[in-house]
Amino acid sequence: MPATFSTLAEFRTLLTHAPKIDAIALGEAQDRNGQLTKPPGALGRLEDLAIWYAGWRGTARPSIDAPQVIIFAGNHGVTAQGVSAFPAEVTEQMVMNFQHGGAAINQLSKAAGASLDVHALSLDVPTQDFTQTSAMDEAGVVDALVAGWNAVAPHTDLLVVGEMGIGNTTSAAAIAHALFGGQAEDWVGRGTGVDDAGLANKARVVREAVALHAGGDGLDTLMRLGGRELAAMAGAIAKARSLRIPVILDGFICTAAAACLAQTQPDALDHTVAGHASAEAAHRALLAQLDKQPLLALNMRLGEGSGGALAINILKSAVACHSGMATFAEAGVSDA
Amino acid sequence: MPATFSTLAEFRTLLTHAPKIDAIALGEAQDRNGQLTKPPGALGRLEDLAIWYAGWRGTARPSIDAPQVIIFAGNHGVTAQGVSAFPAEVTEQMVMNFQHGGAAINQLSKAAGASLDVHALSLDVPTQDFTQTSAMDEAGVVDALVAGWNAVAPHTDLLVVGEMGIGNTTSAAAIAHALFGGQAEDWVGRGTGVDDAGLANKARVVREAVALHAGGDGLDTLMRLGGRELAAMAGAIAKARSLRIPVILDGFICTAAAACLAQTQPDALDHTVAGHASAEAAHRALLAQLDKQPLLALNMRLGEGSGGALAINILKSAVACHSGMATFAEAGVSDA
Repeated sequence: MPATFSTLAEFRTLLTHAPKIDAIALGEAQDRNGQLTKPPGALGRLEDLAIWYAGWRGTARPSIDAPQVIIFAGNHGVTAQGVSAFPAEVTEQMVMNFQHGGAAINQLSKAAGASLDVHALSLDVPTQDFTQTSAMDEAGVVDALVAGWNAVAPHTDLLVVGEMGIGNTTSAAAIAHALFGGQAEDWVGRGTGVDDAGLANKARVVREAVALHAGGDGLDTLMRLGGRELAAMAGAIAKARSLRIPVILDGFICTAAAACLAQTQPDALDHTVAGHASAEAAHRALLAQLDKQPLLALNMRLGEGSGGALAINILKSAVACHSGMATFAEAGVSDA
Repeated sequence: MPATFSTLAEFRTLLTHAPKIDAIALGEAQDRNGQLTKPPGALGRLEDLAIWYAGWRGTARPSIDAPQVIIFAGNHGVTAQGVSAFPAEVTEQMVMNFQHGGAAINQLSKAAGASLDVHALSLDVPTQDFTQTSAMDEAGVVDALVAGWNAVAPHTDLLVVGEMGIGNTTSAAAIAHALFGGQAEDWVGRGTGVDDAGLANKARVVREAVALHAGGDGLDTLMRLGGRELAAMAGAIAKARSLRIPVILDGFICTAAAACLAQTQPDALDHTVAGHASAEAAHRALLAQLDKQPLLALNMRLGEGSGGALAINILKSAVACHSGMATFAEAGVSDA
């Protein structure tokens, strides 16, 4: 399926016309849930997840057989401002590590039974330093959206998108500050491990960037303050929506990219759940803005899609219970 | 390995002489963790879990290949007091459902790659009504402890114990109230779904039972206020300890059984983690008493080992990262 957009305006139109949840499958799944051999509500959020998943897949008794994890990597001109504890070449080194199977996300994807794809996006040409000018021009952000759009395998039935990009917590913080206001300090954290001076410097960078790039909608913000890997995650999330593939959001950077969609089209994240709450403190604030309750809270702050991948098994387990359990009638168990 | 106890006194001695964590493997695992290709601490609790698991297994680079879920089922004389929304015959019906693969725990065990064993413990002879007399005599509780002890497969490398027993949230509440004080109302909840009058009745039952059975240690309390499935869970947890097999605790009833061990021998749960926080509100209070932080909080309240089984993949993922990731040196990635 080729990309069906070549401008931001065309992408906005796609978001507006995205499919909705299947109300009939949703109702049938709710009915089935009420007949399963357990006290009503005893599986808690697993029940909500399974019903929601069934609605998006358009069938009352779905299964999850082909989860896909996609990592997008990008480099950021804003690293010139000294915002990261790691040098920028680590982005490419970690891409090699992903390709050789040595990173956390390789292990987490395997444990989740998910395929893993890695897309390095023009690492030798960092985006512009957004304290000086727009990170990308329209052609650049559209290219990255298209890269994400095209990366989703059509047979995927559950998607996790993750990222690698030295400097990208600063990009995510700038996006969150631009979209949701507050103070720059509310949205910056230690990322891969900056010290107190580094934290103050990140806040300065975010404050200056947002002052420079006021106005516009979520996609304008993504272009001006984002990075290629953030735009690609947004494009993949939108593509998944077009195919009714549910998405598990990862941490702060993934959620910032997703928020650009929601600030452009309010229902754009209805097919997504939050996989976890990151130890990067601003992530919880960002999830609250999007009205998303995280499935896990294990103090992780790695990126790479790690928190989303860890949550795959929660979704799989929820759907397995929903579709595989016996009803009271089938099992001959007395109802309450 | 035959059971090596035939009295509660002999079981107490076993608890006293249980093996400790392997300090050398623990230190080696900590060293390895520091070299893996991620910012320090970025995997959060996954790092702590993997190091703890390595310490118990006695190797710096362990794997989880043979998790085992065991469900114990028992019937409770206290159901004569009208404490459950479901009739007592549901215990046996659900055992059949487990055996036929129709219950939530069948699906959750499969999703976790775990074996599942079900032990029905003299369902046709309920324990005594503990508002009137001791639930079990010493021979009875020892039999149940032995049943649990013998149910753990020697090759298991991660254990989840769960339960089925109409009336057993009342037993667990009585144990918690006896062990940790407070008011009876602090420890009772709606279980499988009693109404307000049912909740008040449960509190009355717990209050009367605890008044009748004051004194003794955790194992005395287990005998007087427990049930066969609770004692069997305690026996299995103790057997796992003797084999250095880490255990994931399930919900309120499992944790109440485990608390009987901890109130007998303070370090008896060092080889356990809390799989989840149940929606049964007293579970969080009980975990706090045991200083255990739950891995998941998904509003589940089913029992059957369901919350513990769902957490197996968290442990597996933690250990897979720890043992499978590349070091900075191996991957050629620049350190911070």
